[in-house]
Amino acid sequence: MTERLAAALEYARRHEADFLKNLQDFVAFGSISTSDEHREEIEKTANWVARRLEALGMQKVAVMPTAGHPVVYGEWLGAPGKPTVLIYGHYDVQPVDPLDLWHSDPFEATLRGENLHARGASDMKGQVAACLNAVEAIVRTGTLPVNVKFLIEGEEEIGSPSLADWIAQNSELLKADFCLNPDAGMLGKDHPTITYGLRGLASFELTVSGPSHDLHSGVFGGTVHNPAKALADLLAGMHDENNHIALPGFYDSVRPLSGEERAHLAKLPVSDAFVLAQTGVPQVWGEAGYTSVERAGGRPTLEINGMLSGFTGQGQKTIIPAWAMAKITCRLVPDQKPEEVYEQMKRYLEERAPKTICWDLKMYGGSEASISDIHKPWVTALANAMESVWGTPPLFKREGGSVPVVGMMQSSLGMESVLTGFGLPDDNLHAPNEKMHVPTWHRGIETLVRFFFNLG
Amino acid sequence: MTERLAAALEYARRHEADFLKNLQDFVAFGSISTSDEHREEIEKTANWVARRLEALGMQKVAVMPTAGHPVVYGEWLGAPGKPTVLIYGHYDVQPVDPLDLWHSDPFEATLRGENLHARGASDMKGQVAACLNAVEAIVRTGTLPVNVKFLIEGEEEIGSPSLADWIAQNSELLKADFCLNPDAGMLGKDHPTITYGLRGLASFELTVSGPSHDLHSGVFGGTVHNPAKALADLLAGMHDENNHIALPGFYDSVRPLSGEERAHLAKLPVSDAFVLAQTGVPQVWGEAGYTSVERAGGRPTLEINGMLSGFTGQGQKTIIPAWAMAKITCRLVPDQKPEEVYEQMKRYLEERAPKTICWDLKMYGGSEASISDIHKPWVTALANAMESVWGTPPLFKREGGSVPVVGMMQSSLGMESVLTGFGLPDDNLHAPNEKMHVPTWHRGIETLVRFFFNLG
Repeated sequence: MTERLAAALEYARRHEADFLKNLQDFVAFGSISTSDEHREEIEKTANWVARRLEALGMQKVAVMPTAGHPVVYGEWLGAPGKPTVLIYGHYDVQPVDPLDLWHSDPFEATLRGENLHARGASDMKGQVAACLNAVEAIVRTGTLPVNVKFLIEGEEEIGSPSLADWIAQNSELLKADFCLNPDAGMLGKDHPTITYGLRGLASFELTVSGPSHDLHSGVFGGTVHNPAKALADLLAGMHDENNHIALPGFYDSVRPLSGEERAHLAKLPVSDAFVLAQTGVPQVWGEAGYTSVERAGGRPTLEINGMLSGFTGQGQKTIIPAWAMAKITCRLVPDQKPEEVYEQMKRYLEERAPKTICWDLKMYGGSEASISDIHKPWVTALANAMESVWGTPPLFKREGGSVPVVGMMQSSLGMESVLTGFGLPDDNLHAPNEKMHVPTWHRGIETLVRFFFNLG
Repeated sequence: MTERLAAALEYARRHEADFLKNLQDFVAFGSISTSDEHREEIEKTANWVARRLEALGMQKVAVMPTAGHPVVYGEWLGAPGKPTVLIYGHYDVQPVDPLDLWHSDPFEATLRGENLHARGASDMKGQVAACLNAVEAIVRTGTLPVNVKFLIEGEEEIGSPSLADWIAQNSELLKADFCLNPDAGMLGKDHPTITYGLRGLASFELTVSGPSHDLHSGVFGGTVHNPAKALADLLAGMHDENNHIALPGFYDSVRPLSGEERAHLAKLPVSDAFVLAQTGVPQVWGEAGYTSVERAGGRPTLEINGMLSGFTGQGQKTIIPAWAMAKITCRLVPDQKPEEVYEQMKRYLEERAPKTICWDLKMYGGSEASISDIHKPWVTALANAMESVWGTPPLFKREGGSVPVVGMMQSSLGMESVLTGFGLPDDNLHAPNEKMHVPTWHRGIETLVRFFFNLG
């Protein structure tokens, strides 16, 4: 261990209480992004982050306007020839209702046992603070071994609606070797985790229509095709008996899971029992030939997100509904393209929909899956840092969800992201009593300090 | 033709204008039964009917209370040894919104060409008035050749919720040989029609549930069975590829259509083109081996009346919904029993539902189909009357819908109903610009006069 690293780690250890105090200040802002009434808190939070970046010696610090809530930017480029890390984070948080389920004020961080309870403690003010604290530990005891840029946005919890434009307009400013995105979590407190793949998305609305108006099911029942029944048939046919997706050509551009990946995924502590416990379903389900972990992260899916047709109130209404609608999303894996899936869905409907009904397929948009090369130096730097701290190599995970900002970094800046974070599965994200496990958080700060030195 | 019949018909012809004027008074009441705000109009209408019955010499005339809107009763039993006809009708009407689509005030009857436009003109104040006018023509020129009882209710348009109890409490009062129910219509102005069969109903709500809460489709998509998908599979399997209903044993107690019935049904002017025109569907659909008319009247059906699951608002929400629900009704034919169909549906679900989801089947109730013997003397009396007026025998029709009061008469009083009426398919029932074809209505009055004499 170099002296500089040792000094930084020593600083971090001595300042654990200060770091926690600082986080308590950060989470005290009610920076809920979903409604305009919290606009003032949003601005206060952005300014707090900006002042913190200035205090750490960052340059060009600015609270930069977007079409929505501002982005906080700051950079330090004093390590020429060394890599530049773009650190992504968000300072906004989810709403707190139902408030009566909280055991303490969501904006007054409360330590109970090893956990700090507050909205944003884990998602993700705690993660942003970990990065800032790691930088503090280094700059108070020396200088940063790498160049850093911070992009801390205020609209992640509402889907980052203004960020793509802002990134496109600031692509020069944001140039970096890769993006560190600590908005992903760990699979358990003894399992440091690197998320190297995310699924993409293709989102549809399928409407089946028949009669021009709801019909009396007595008068016309038996003579016309019920649109809800026709929709049910079409939806049922979208999977075969092995739960493979039956859209023509759907798997043509699906990149198979490699042996190395399957070995990594097999190590994840995500058993079927875990799925049962988390969801409450009576049995797991899915595509034949793959484990639950493989299906959730490495295989595409087709899900019905919603269905609506006819009468849905109390009691009965004896109609043949005029139309029936299903919302459908496909989670995509490399190298599927959302537009291709739209064409496959259209072809399926053209081939299968009977002439007794009409159908309309609307595409809401989509995003491609992303996958990072786990042999890139920054992944190795992070993995080694984790192993130093935990004494065990990290788990490599493919995440089933989609993180829009990772796609933006990829498409707008051509930049890969490495996703990590120090939150735990039971942190109650987006729910009452959100918490953060303080000892894990301190390990996270140490990991980040080591990561910067490993990179440098 | 007897002198008494000739005199009554002559009276009816001379008083056509008076009859129409009288109907205009009847439809002027806004006796909408769906909401309490029209209660005063309901009472005025009931009193108007009662006064009219008194004016025709009926006895025991009373506006009798029920749990809801009152029933108007009146009887004349001055023909001992002759049959007794229970005449059913309703004095309530459907709401009139959207009012701006009406070309004239719905409660100010307006003659345009041969049609009288008003709410209730056809459904069914016009039909009740036809019966009253027929009785008037006879009693003003002699005496009734049969005994009559009138039961005119005020809740038909809201499903007759209070009538079953009221009938049960007044079963002695209502004793009669059969019920004349003029709440059915004609298949065209040149097609007098007798409806001799009605379908029954069995009504269900099927809920499929899986996870204890809506899940993130990225995190869990591919590992748990989507309840909306499972419901779609179950619904899809309820019909086979010939559109036969696939519930086990469903057809076991279905009475086959006889050769005589198929011959009668083949005469009905209800072509596939008629179904297309009335419904706007691109093609007809249904059970293989039967015509549209046979399927609508003489064969059972299974229809989805509504479906609901997950997110149905604008845009997308990437969830696996916790549950999915479908409202289902079966139209039944003799000799199916609603409870049997419930057991069949349950068995289907027990056999077909996968262990990866849970399901719950609720039964809302049901009614058996009814069918009348078309060789009964009152059917012959009506058929002969129609042939005398139109010069053509009536069409014999099985109606696809269910008329609750027919079931009540059957189960509570053991009484068969003969269904007829003088409304036409384009009368805009329940819709703006409801109308009645005046020349057909006068023929209807003449038919009823002849009917009473044929019976006597």
